[in-house]
Parts: sequence; structure tokens; C-alpha cells
Amino acid sequence: MTTLDSLHEALNNGIKAEINNIINELHPSEIADVLESLPIKQRFELWQLKNIDPGDILPHISENVRLELMLNMPIANITVAAENMAIDDAVDILQNLPDEIVEKVLQAMNWRHRQRLTQVLFYPKDSAGGLMNTDVLTVRMEMTLKMVSYYLRRLKQLPEKTDVLMVVDCNNCYRGMLSLLDILTNTPKFTVSQVMSSEIEPISAHLSAHDVAILFEQRDLLSAPVVDEQGYLMGRITVDDVVDVIRSEADHHLMGQAGLDGDDDMFAPILTTMKDRALWLGVNLATAFLAAYVIGLFSTTLEQMVALAILMPVVASMGGIAGSQTLTIVIRGMALNQISNTNIIWLLKKELAVGLLNGMIWAIVVALIAIVWFSNVKLGIIIGCALLINLSLAALSGVFIPFILRRLSIDPALAAGVTLTTITDIIGFGTLLGLATIFLL
Amino acid sequence: MTTLDSLHEALNNGIKAEINNIINELHPSEIADVLESLPIKQRFELWQLKNIDPGDILPHISENVRLELMLNMPIANITVAAENMAIDDAVDILQNLPDEIVEKVLQAMNWRHRQRLTQVLFYPKDSAGGLMNTDVLTVRMEMTLKMVSYYLRRLKQLPEKTDVLMVVDCNNCYRGMLSLLDILTNTPKFTVSQVMSSEIEPISAHLSAHDVAILFEQRDLLSAPVVDEQGYLMGRITVDDVVDVIRSEADHHLMGQAGLDGDDDMFAPILTTMKDRALWLGVNLATAFLAAYVIGLFSTTLEQMVALAILMPVVASMGGIAGSQTLTIVIRGMALNQISNTNIIWLLKKELAVGLLNGMIWAIVVALIAIVWFSNVKLGIIIGCALLINLSLAALSGVFIPFILRRLSIDPALAAGVTLTTITDIIGFGTLLGLATIFLL
Repeated sequence: MTTLDSLHEALNNGIKAEINNIINELHPSEIADVLESLPIKQRFELWQLKNIDPGDILPHISENVRLELMLNMPIANITVAAENMAIDDAVDILQNLPDEIVEKVLQAMNWRHRQRLTQVLFYPKDSAGGLMNTDVLTVRMEMTLKMVSYYLRRLKQLPEKTDVLMVVDCNNCYRGMLSLLDILTNTPKFTVSQVMSSEIEPISAHLSAHDVAILFEQRDLLSAPVVDEQGYLMGRITVDDVVDVIRSEADHHLMGQAGLDGDDDMFAPILTTMKDRALWLGVNLATAFLAAYVIGLFSTTLEQMVALAILMPVVASMGGIAGSQTLTIVIRGMALNQISNTNIIWLLKKELAVGLLNGMIWAIVVALIAIVWFSNVKLGIIIGCALLINLSLAALSGVFIPFILRRLSIDPALAAGVTLTTITDIIGFGTLLGLATIFLL
Repeated sequence: MTTLDSLHEALNNGIKAEINNIINELHPSEIADVLESLPIKQRFELWQLKNIDPGDILPHISENVRLELMLNMPIANITVAAENMAIDDAVDILQNLPDEIVEKVLQAMNWRHRQRLTQVLFYPKDSAGGLMNTDVLTVRMEMTLKMVSYYLRRLKQLPEKTDVLMVVDCNNCYRGMLSLLDILTNTPKFTVSQVMSSEIEPISAHLSAHDVAILFEQRDLLSAPVVDEQGYLMGRITVDDVVDVIRSEADHHLMGQAGLDGDDDMFAPILTTMKDRALWLGVNLATAFLAAYVIGLFSTTLEQMVALAILMPVVASMGGIAGSQTLTIVIRGMALNQISNTNIIWLLKKELAVGLLNGMIWAIVVALIAIVWFSNVKLGIIIGCALLINLSLAALSGVFIPFILRRLSIDPALAAGVTLTTITDIIGFGTLLGLATIFLL
């Protein structure tokens, strides 16, 4: 925290020498963090400094902030920055930009860079092809380890973080991986094909980033080859790219519940933030009025017994809480591919049983409190029944909503929570007031 | 999905040969997934099969399910499994168990294994020391690369996923890392100290797992050395362990909001699940009754104007939504160390401004709807004011609650949401009914 604090202070006081000193001591990713944690004005001030190298820092900045900074950069600077990055990083930052700017940047590049980038840009961002780095060292199966060692020593520049070489046949089709450790621990006379491991299956360039992440986690992979439909080696994915996928999926799930973008900029201008959030508030307002409409149907009942108005939020909110517990479990199970057609019925029965049991316990508690508070036994029984009904239906909704949304191609991370609380509110208010209308008046 | 489905079917029909066939084709991590996605009875059935090797599978199973399986294993089997795992995996599974069982397992081991395990078990689970693997290849600074190559070739068993060697001085103090690539691409005559990289600073064994994860993400590290206070090399952390930390933190944040444990077992017995969730429902019931109590203070007002009972959930729920947007942003910023003393005031002002602006917009919308619905201009103005007040205070609460909870050593991931909605409910109901009591009656 202290570095950030002292940098903020130096920026506030405009002490250039001090700012430069601090910046020079920081890793590019730390500078990226600092940029993200600054209000817009200071962010641009820092970004303009001479000892800030966009090529180093851009890959570390989160999407929204990066876009904002890059839209204010001249095309020539973006081009230089992109040329000096690893291919996968360059693709990452370009995929963010509007198409016409990407086109201009590609035109401004030398043809070699352009060719390599367009190859990857062809694949969607959230696919194995979009994640891969095409900068791969390949060797042939029939080479001896001695030849490989010689070849490695002759190369001047090696791709960063190379821990394995990719083995291909004469058609450039993937055949296996040769770890550097294998080269070092085996007799130099052996051929690559004798030593290489073909255990790790290549990943199709069209596999989704989500499935790539699951694969890496399950197999504890550090890197994996990517191939096209014909089996040609296209590139490789390293675990650090997968870490970014996992982090951004987690952010999406967490922030999505509040209707926010996973890459939201904490220090975006007030109007931008306001607009981003207004839509979600609008959606929720509509559902709140839907609930209010249901309450309104029973206005004569409410007039006759104000205790119902006092107690009705209890029934609605308990349903919302119980339902969101089920919902969270189900959405996570779906994300980890743990729910299938055969265990969904089992899960549904279980959640229903849990809902019923917890419903009974809390129905009794709430009923007793209501009886004591309002000295009305009938009211107590009715609120207990309403609670039991709401908790059971909340469990059902928690299981079904994510599946229905997915079938409708709506992202459950965004929409499941609000759909659930709409249902539990309406059922909560409706059953309590409905039962009261029938049995109390 | 099909493998899981066909395995479920084979288990349901008890076709042993079929089950064994499917199991033999799966990776240990996939078997772990299958175990997690099975109801208890079938889970134990599968676990008892002969071709299931606990040593391979246990490291991949989530904590709660693993504990349940291990508590039913004889000490001897746990010992064999732990001896056949990488040190960091063995520590992981032991840290889960009750102390007396760990003691028995350690006693049953050969002394070498015991010694290496106790060294790591000394550190808390969520620290760099708890994450590290002590199985490290070390070389001395003064060795030539040729000597290193010779040494590597002579070793029979090498630690898995070795991509770098650790360089130590004669006191076993960490001095740098030597990547296998450096050995292969440099002249064999060079000494280790000429080639090694000392860029990556060693991690203190006491650093928290959370900070280790941030460091790995920022620096795109694949592995890093761990040292004790004296600078002695203790072990190394590899990125696959960090992936687990990131995943479990994300789960904790997501599941914590619903009062669930990040490691919750979807297929736990009904009673276990019920008990786990009942506490959270109880906490929420208490807060719901607090809100009900506030409504109860205004029962005479409600009796005279039932429209207030209809509209009051709208004010409360909009406050909850707006507040949770701010809260989510702030908690995430805290987790990424992006909020410091110098930018918190800026952030507070911004969130307050967003709250006020969105408050005004939606206050007008809600006021208009109320005026049309109930043909009562005064009521419309009052609900608009209540909404504006609630959204502004919700923004304030969203910024302050996480800091106050952290100061009180309460986990914001668990408690912030429920604290916020309690406040927005009470303020929402209180201001609407309070203003109505003063100005409408």
C-alpha cells in the first residue's frame, strides 16, 4: 500500500522527480495496477510520462481501462507497442479495439508481424485459438537430442517461458511434446520420437476458453499444444493465460450478480459509471413494481389487517435467501460440468427436501414470533404456511432457473439472481396475502 | 457429459465390468470430478473399487468430499497414499484431517517422509510455506553448466514439472534460478552464477496465499522460490498450486454471499446441507424481523394509507441493488489491493455522486408511477425523496461496510451483503413511512 500512497501523494503535489523514481522501481504489472487505481485525470498524467513503456504495461491493464488509454494513443504508438509484445499479448490488446483501428494498426506493421497476428485474430477471443501464442519452438521426430541441443544453442532469441518443445512430423502435424528436462536427462544419441511424451492431447483451436481452463486445472498443465481441424500445430497455450481466464470468469460471476461488467473500472468517470449501473437498476425497478402490483391486488386485505404489511417482507426475503443458496450451488456445479442429466433429478429432490425441512423449522419460528407479537394464532399459522410454500418453491426455482436461462441462451451469471428474487418476492407476498384473504377475513 | 452419464447408468445398474472400463479411461482428476458429482452411496461404492488409487485421486477432490472419504479410510491406506504423492499434495490432504489422525499417519510413515512433511506442516495452510513443494533440485553457483548437465543425467528421479533449478550458496541460501533453457542455450563452460537469473525475488514462507497469488498473476510467474527468515531455501511454489488458490478464493467470494462454504459438497446428505444453510437463514431471519420491527413502528400510518404498504418494498429493494453494486466494486478493489488511504475519499465521493444521480433519475420515475397509480401527488413526492435518500445512503454503506468489517476482523465476503441489505431495508422502510407520517397524515 505504501508505494501506491506515496505515488498518489507525489502525483497530487506534482513532484516529477519523485514520480519518476517510484515508477522506475515498479514492475510493469504494478504500474498497471497503479494506473487502474487512479482517477482519470491522474491516470492520463501518469500515462504520458516518458519512462512509461506502453508495450510493457498494456498487457497487464484490465480491459476497460486499457481501451480508454489506447483510444487516446496515436496509431503509430499502438503499432510499436504491439510489435514489441508476445503474440498472445498483442492479440489480447488488439481484440479490444474497434475494427477500424485494428485494421490501421495491422497495415502499419511489417508484413511478418501482420501475418502472425492475423492468424490468431481469426479465432474468437474466448477460444483456444484466441488464447494461444503462435511463437513456438518445433522439432522433428527423427532429430537426435544432440541435434536438438545444437539447434537450441544456435538460436539467438527464444520464446519466453519455453519449458517444452513441440514435436511435429513432416506435415507440421502435432505428434508430441519434448520437455527440456527430457533433453537434459537422456543420452544425446536418442531421437526425439524415443524420448518425447505424447500423453497430452492437443487442444482444438475452437475449444472454448472456459473448457481450456477446466482442462488445465484438471490436468495441472503448464502448457498445451493447439491444433486446427487438420491436426496442424497452430501454437501453444501457457498456464499464465489460463490464470487470466479463471480470474476473469470469477469476476464475471461475482460482478454479474450486481449487474456489473467483470472488467469494470472503479475509477471511470461518474457519468459512465452511472449509465453502466442505471440499466440494472431499471430492470430491478420493473421487477419491484411487479411485486408491488401483486401486493396491490390484496389492498383491501391489507387495510383490514396491517400486521400483514409488517410481516410480508419476512416471507419474501427468507425465500430469496434460501433460493439463492440453491442457485449458487447449481450455477457453480454447471460451470464445473458436474451436473448431468442423470444426477439433476437427484439434486432436485435433495434441494426440495432441504427447502421443505428448513421451511418447516423456520415456519415454526416465524409462526411463534407472529403469534406472540400480534396475539393472533391464525395469523401465525398462515405466515408459517406461506413461508413453507415459499422456501420449497425457492428451492425448485434455484435448480430450474439456471437451466431454463441457459436453454434460452441468457447468461445465468447475470440474470439468474434477479429472476429468482422476482419469483420469491411474488410468491412470498402472494401466498401470505392470498392465504390471509381466504382464511382470515 | 456422456462419460458421466454412462458411468451413472453403469453404477445404477451395478454393471461392474462397464464401471471398470470407464474408470480406466479417465484421468485421476476426472475420477475426482465424478466422485464429487455422485450421491453419497454411489460415491463410496465407486471409491471402494480396486482400480481406484487414492494416492492419485485425493489431491484432486474438493476439501469436504475428501475429508468424508478419508475419515472412512484405514490409517495404513492414508499413509501409503500420502507417501506416494508430491510433498505439497500430501500436505494439502493432511491439513484437512483432524490432528490426531495426522499424528497417527506421520507416525506410520518412514522417518524421511515424516521429516519432510513436518517441515511444511509447520506453516499455516494459507501461507507460502503451506503451498510450497520442498522437493526441489538445487545447484551451487560455482558449478559449470557441464557439471549441472552431468548431475541431471545421473539423477534417476526428478521432481515433476521441473523447469528451473534453484541456485544456492554454500549456506543453502537462495541466490537465483537457473532455467533449463539457460543450460541448453549457453556454452557448457560457463558457471551457474554467470548464467542464472536473480530477477525473481524469493517469497517469504510466511507470505499469505492471497498475496502469493497476486504476485504470480502480476509477474506471470511459473514458479518461485520460498525462503525462511534467514534466507534459507525452503522449497518452491509452482503456478498450478496458485491456480487452486485463485479458484478457491473466487469460490469463497461467490458462495460466501449466500452464506455457503466455498468447498460445499453439492451431494452432501440432506441433513448436513440443511444444517449448513440453517444458520444463514437464521441470521437473515433476525435482520428481516428488524426490518419488520421498523415497519411496525408506523402501523397507524399504514392503516390510514395502504398504498404505502404496496410501495415500500420498491424503495427497500432499489436501495439494496444500488448498494450491492458499490459493495461489489469495493470488495473486489480491496482484494486486488487497489484501494488505499489516498484514493478512498475520491472513491467515496464518486460513489456518492453516482448514488445521488441515479437516485434522482429513479426517484422521478418512481414518483411518476406512484402519482399515476394512486392519483396522489404528495405520495409520489414522498416516495421519490425516500428513494433518493436510500440510494445515497446505500452508496455510502457500500463503501464503508467492507472497511468497517475488515477492521472488526469479520470476513467481508460473508457478512458485507447481509449487513448492507439490513441497512437499506431499514432506511428504505423507515424513510418512506417516516416521511409519510410527517407530511401525509
